[in-house]
Amino acid sequence: MKKQLTIGLFGFGCVGTGLYEVLNRTTLLQASIKHIVIKDLSKKRIIDPGYFSTDADRILNDKEINVVVELINDYEAAYAIVTRALKAGKHVVSANKKLIAYYLDELVSLAKENNVSFLYEASVGGSIPIIRNLEEYYNNDSLSNISGIVNGTTNYILTKTGEGESFDEALKNAQELGFAELDPTSDVDGFDAKYKLVLLLKHAFGFTAKQDELWNYGIRQLKDWDATYAREKGLKIKLLAYGTRINNQVIGFVAPHLIPANHFAFNVENEFNAVVVEALFSDKQLFLGKGAGSHPTASAVLSDISALQFDYAYEYKKSKTEEALAFESDYSVKVYLSATSQEKLDQVRFIETLETYSGPSHSYKIGIIPYEEIRKQDWNNEPDYFLAIIPDSVELTKGIEFKETESAGLIEELS
Amino acid sequence: MKKQLTIGLFGFGCVGTGLYEVLNRTTLLQASIKHIVIKDLSKKRIIDPGYFSTDADRILNDKEINVVVELINDYEAAYAIVTRALKAGKHVVSANKKLIAYYLDELVSLAKENNVSFLYEASVGGSIPIIRNLEEYYNNDSLSNISGIVNGTTNYILTKTGEGESFDEALKNAQELGFAELDPTSDVDGFDAKYKLVLLLKHAFGFTAKQDELWNYGIRQLKDWDATYAREKGLKIKLLAYGTRINNQVIGFVAPHLIPANHFAFNVENEFNAVVVEALFSDKQLFLGKGAGSHPTASAVLSDISALQFDYAYEYKKSKTEEALAFESDYSVKVYLSATSQEKLDQVRFIETLETYSGPSHSYKIGIIPYEEIRKQDWNNEPDYFLAIIPDSVELTKGIEFKETESAGLIEELS
Repeated sequence: MKKQLTIGLFGFGCVGTGLYEVLNRTTLLQASIKHIVIKDLSKKRIIDPGYFSTDADRILNDKEINVVVELINDYEAAYAIVTRALKAGKHVVSANKKLIAYYLDELVSLAKENNVSFLYEASVGGSIPIIRNLEEYYNNDSLSNISGIVNGTTNYILTKTGEGESFDEALKNAQELGFAELDPTSDVDGFDAKYKLVLLLKHAFGFTAKQDELWNYGIRQLKDWDATYAREKGLKIKLLAYGTRINNQVIGFVAPHLIPANHFAFNVENEFNAVVVEALFSDKQLFLGKGAGSHPTASAVLSDISALQFDYAYEYKKSKTEEALAFESDYSVKVYLSATSQEKLDQVRFIETLETYSGPSHSYKIGIIPYEEIRKQDWNNEPDYFLAIIPDSVELTKGIEFKETESAGLIEELS
Repeated sequence: MKKQLTIGLFGFGCVGTGLYEVLNRTTLLQASIKHIVIKDLSKKRIIDPGYFSTDADRILNDKEINVVVELINDYEAAYAIVTRALKAGKHVVSANKKLIAYYLDELVSLAKENNVSFLYEASVGGSIPIIRNLEEYYNNDSLSNISGIVNGTTNYILTKTGEGESFDEALKNAQELGFAELDPTSDVDGFDAKYKLVLLLKHAFGFTAKQDELWNYGIRQLKDWDATYAREKGLKIKLLAYGTRINNQVIGFVAPHLIPANHFAFNVENEFNAVVVEALFSDKQLFLGKGAGSHPTASAVLSDISALQFDYAYEYKKSKTEEALAFESDYSVKVYLSATSQEKLDQVRFIETLETYSGPSHSYKIGIIPYEEIRKQDWNNEPDYFLAIIPDSVELTKGIEFKETESAGLIEELS
């Protein structure tokens, strides 16, 4: 039943190196790396240089290699590799959330046409087996909500800003420690979390979201006064990917949330990730683990490789149901919005104002705002503002009310 | 690929009723209940009486029924039903942890011989998909520790004693609310948690523990002064099932633990369950969800039924490795031990005493005690004592030291 897996590996960075080590130390798997394709042959490597080349054909044209593991950063280059590998009848394991978010349906079709598997557990939540659980365990239990902390870099930065560092200091320290890229845009502006949300929405609801439908707003514009406000109120600011489904409508976005101590994400700090799944019958469930790092991520890749021994493939069962789901943007949400001046603050239209503060350095408002009003601006690049969602506040305009219950209810019930 | 599942159900209590409702409200599954066998026909039921009989043969001799769902309390009666069903070539889904803990290897062999599946996700942790994750996701990632809150009844009682109720009051209230049985022995003396620990050890380490090897000590002897001690120190008392593996040695027990605020179990209250898995590469992961209740448990049963559509069976991969594991009892542990008098306290041999208190109502000691010393007494029936393990303190006598790292490290790293 088990087959011998011969692996061609693209990329030998942090996760690739981890995979090599993890594979070497596990005894239960009949899998070995035959060849590794990298960009730069001159870099010193920890293993036999005979493994390496810069020639993709060495893997893609090798009939003995039946599994391609793709661990490179460039998503367009990854697209070329993955499509060629699938067409060549090789299984593909990838951790490239951007690639998958952009080309999900195409890659899924291609894998199916060529009767191979395309697996990507490591692309969301590092070691947390969230895709597999959504795919296998919840397939008969109607899911209503999925949300979580899915970006370790911003969670590390927010842990530090929560402790009093400024955003710029925290980012600089994260970069020095290797937790953040030199160009941190993808992480701090919420793009990375959005790619992951695309995958979560697909496996939770069977819904393929378009990149431009999902609003992503990150933490780049977080000011000291926002961190201070949260701290004084006993709250924390966390970047959450949020998805909910009501009837045939799907709402999804990535945004900072201002959360209370009973929120599931409150104690999820540093590089930890956590995802809460809310289902009709099984109720709320929390999955928590290391969202990044060489070995945790490599272990998720390894788990996919291991599943290939038994010809495992995602079935996308939820995508096959009759119901046509539609993306919904006609809703309102409660927010905290701070601005560098009262004048700036007044330029944003609220449906309802609940609290206002005006002061010499900044002003803020808490109130209800329509999502369409939010979408009008490129908030990631608006240095005069910082906005955070207040949980339990998403409300459809057309009368049906529902709540971000998974966000606030869990720990409340626990405590 | 999907097959039609025709279900024969034994038992129509809380979980059985939940299953009926859940099955009725899900659309993704080709499964229906054909017949239900119960003990008492005179009880009023919420559904068509035509479903019911007291005659097991109506299910076991019905060739059309290909799945038996066993949801009765009596584990010996369940044994008779399950063995007959497996021999008749029917898949079996069970939530009966006592049955499985007692007859695991036999039932697994029987299922294999008859080429059918025997699934029991609902038997541990209610809705938490812990068996499936241990079985499928961690199979190549060496597991070192598994521990958790796996009994909702005692967790509910401990939540209340933590708030100031006496054990007797809390138990009485739990009974009135239907959270505890009239004879609460199985829950409050840690038997139920021990059965679940047997299943966790099997799926985590591939180790079949004998009932009498695993020490189970519950919370029946918890005194007000113990609860007060915990509260004053900012600690909580939680009943944990604990399993660890070092090299070829396995340690497992169920006992109250005196845990600090950074312990994973600290905020897991009321009927919630939580399991922490620690693995070599994926690090620590927490699974948290409702451990009991009609719908959460039924959803786990349903997930097993759903898996049967694709001929899913546990493979017990970890049991197939060459290594012979042995149960280890030669270790010491740090404990808090209270007694109704100094004299009583002095009767228990400690290797090392770290703190002592002697007072008019009671005395206590914190120190290191050999497991063999603990095993000598039937602590559940020693009203003069209460004992709680202090995390991070399990230490092999033969020199190799290790720690209950999963217990204390997780939230510490988080915060």
